[in-house]
Amino acid sequence: MKALMLGYGNVGKALNSLIRERSPKLGLDIKVEGVVTRRGIMLNQREDFHPDKEGTVLEALDLINPDLVIDVSSANYEDGEPSLSLYLESLSRGINVVTANKAPLALNFSRIMAVAEKNGAKVGFQATVMSGTPSINLLRAMRAAEVRKIRGILNGTTNYILTRMNEGLDYLSALKEAQRRGYAETDPEHDVNGFDAAAKLTILANFALKKPVTLKDVEFSGIKDVTQDKVKEAARKGKKIKLIANAGEGSLRVMTSEISPEDPLYHVDGVTNALDVHTDVQEVVIIGPGAGPLNAAFGVFSDIVLMYKGTF
Amino acid sequence: MKALMLGYGNVGKALNSLIRERSPKLGLDIKVEGVVTRRGIMLNQREDFHPDKEGTVLEALDLINPDLVIDVSSANYEDGEPSLSLYLESLSRGINVVTANKAPLALNFSRIMAVAEKNGAKVGFQATVMSGTPSINLLRAMRAAEVRKIRGILNGTTNYILTRMNEGLDYLSALKEAQRRGYAETDPEHDVNGFDAAAKLTILANFALKKPVTLKDVEFSGIKDVTQDKVKEAARKGKKIKLIANAGEGSLRVMTSEISPEDPLYHVDGVTNALDVHTDVQEVVIIGPGAGPLNAAFGVFSDIVLMYKGTF
Repeated sequence: MKALMLGYGNVGKALNSLIRERSPKLGLDIKVEGVVTRRGIMLNQREDFHPDKEGTVLEALDLINPDLVIDVSSANYEDGEPSLSLYLESLSRGINVVTANKAPLALNFSRIMAVAEKNGAKVGFQATVMSGTPSINLLRAMRAAEVRKIRGILNGTTNYILTRMNEGLDYLSALKEAQRRGYAETDPEHDVNGFDAAAKLTILANFALKKPVTLKDVEFSGIKDVTQDKVKEAARKGKKIKLIANAGEGSLRVMTSEISPEDPLYHVDGVTNALDVHTDVQEVVIIGPGAGPLNAAFGVFSDIVLMYKGTF
Repeated sequence: MKALMLGYGNVGKALNSLIRERSPKLGLDIKVEGVVTRRGIMLNQREDFHPDKEGTVLEALDLINPDLVIDVSSANYEDGEPSLSLYLESLSRGINVVTANKAPLALNFSRIMAVAEKNGAKVGFQATVMSGTPSINLLRAMRAAEVRKIRGILNGTTNYILTRMNEGLDYLSALKEAQRRGYAETDPEHDVNGFDAAAKLTILANFALKKPVTLKDVEFSGIKDVTQDKVKEAARKGKKIKLIANAGEGSLRVMTSEISPEDPLYHVDGVTNALDVHTDVQEVVIIGPGAGPLNAAFGVFSDIVLMYKGTF
């Protein structure tokens, strides 16, 4: 099986290693025959990206003619490009897509899935929500139930900052510590304003609740107005302030909330993420890391394994 | 697709309803054409079991000639019969098996799976561990990772009793309350002595760690020697006593342990179950109900959906 990879950062490199090392023992015959980035197309695998020729993503698609397109490029929330065009063209040719890139799905979930369905192609996107911790793929395993509501701690950066604030730090010190430890980017805006969690919630709402929403439909606010006073006030009541993403029962939003120890999300601290799924049968909570290159690569690779080798 | 069902208690009835109500919208064409119990074979579905003719499980297999065998009968830990014979014969004919019955797998996992593999048949057993909460099926979704260690709270009865003891009740009062609320059986021996959790751990160790162990290999002890004094002593150290099933890194046992608030299992109280999976990529914890007829039926039905409709 031939794969074309879009993007070649840390996730792409980790994924390349996973594919090389683990495919044989999983009975998976897969080879990344091309990598395309803004800088061009690489045809022979090397540790670092070196373009062998110029070309756009669609030219790379024609050149490689892959069975599978893998997107590990970074999110472009303006219009989802060039990923969006690559997905639509690939899917319309019946080529499967597996992605770790939230933007195209958060902006155009319904459209992408409609093209996939019409052409009998599949889209894997476990890595877009909670990285390698099964969220989408947990929901796949539970799809015989009807999901009523989902709640989650979907952003590790903000959960880390709130955890440290609960331990006494003020917002700026906690943010700086997160940056120093690599948990927050130099420009942390998309994390701390709730945007990143909103993108993930959009994908979950589409998949689990079958709501054809886009990122624009999500009401979101972040943690920037959380002060030590508010954290202490919550603590006096035995509660913690958490940034909770919530979808279902008419709600679609990301906002801070005071939650109590009976709530399974109360105990989820640090960079850890969690998803609390309420179905017509039962409530299930999954907790795990929500970021990291190896985790994201594992999320992508899990999709590939499930797509080509099935569950059973 | 024709199914033969072994057993027709509360789980079987709930499963029958799920199959009837949910199969059409999942694109699943399945019909339970026969039910076999110790009392004989029922060919026409009725709310309560009435045998239409006499016959053993193997006679029922010949009579129905199903595509799928579903086992929702109760566990026989003497020899796993009549389930074991039914599985081996069905699988040798290439007929898939989905089961909620722990005993045959806890006693003969390797043998059953070898016959399945040889004949290209599949075995679904999500419902044997944590009922409808994805445990086996979570591991299926994560099988691109290598599991190093699994820890779990796999028995709701004992976890309920320990939770109530932590709230001040003595062992006997907590047990009686569990019985009154339907969380413990009249004869609670298999729960309170750790046997039930050991059976589940055997299945997990085989599946997740590829260890060809049987129930006899599990070292287990229960909660009968947990006293109020011990619970209070743990609480003084900020800890809780929990019955933890543990496999991996040379260990295979079920025993009580004092665990601290940093442990994700510390916060799992009442009848709720949890599984803590350590892989070479990441640690993931899943929490949910571990018993109940609808939950078990949902676990079985989830296997059927994944087996015949795939993950993607």
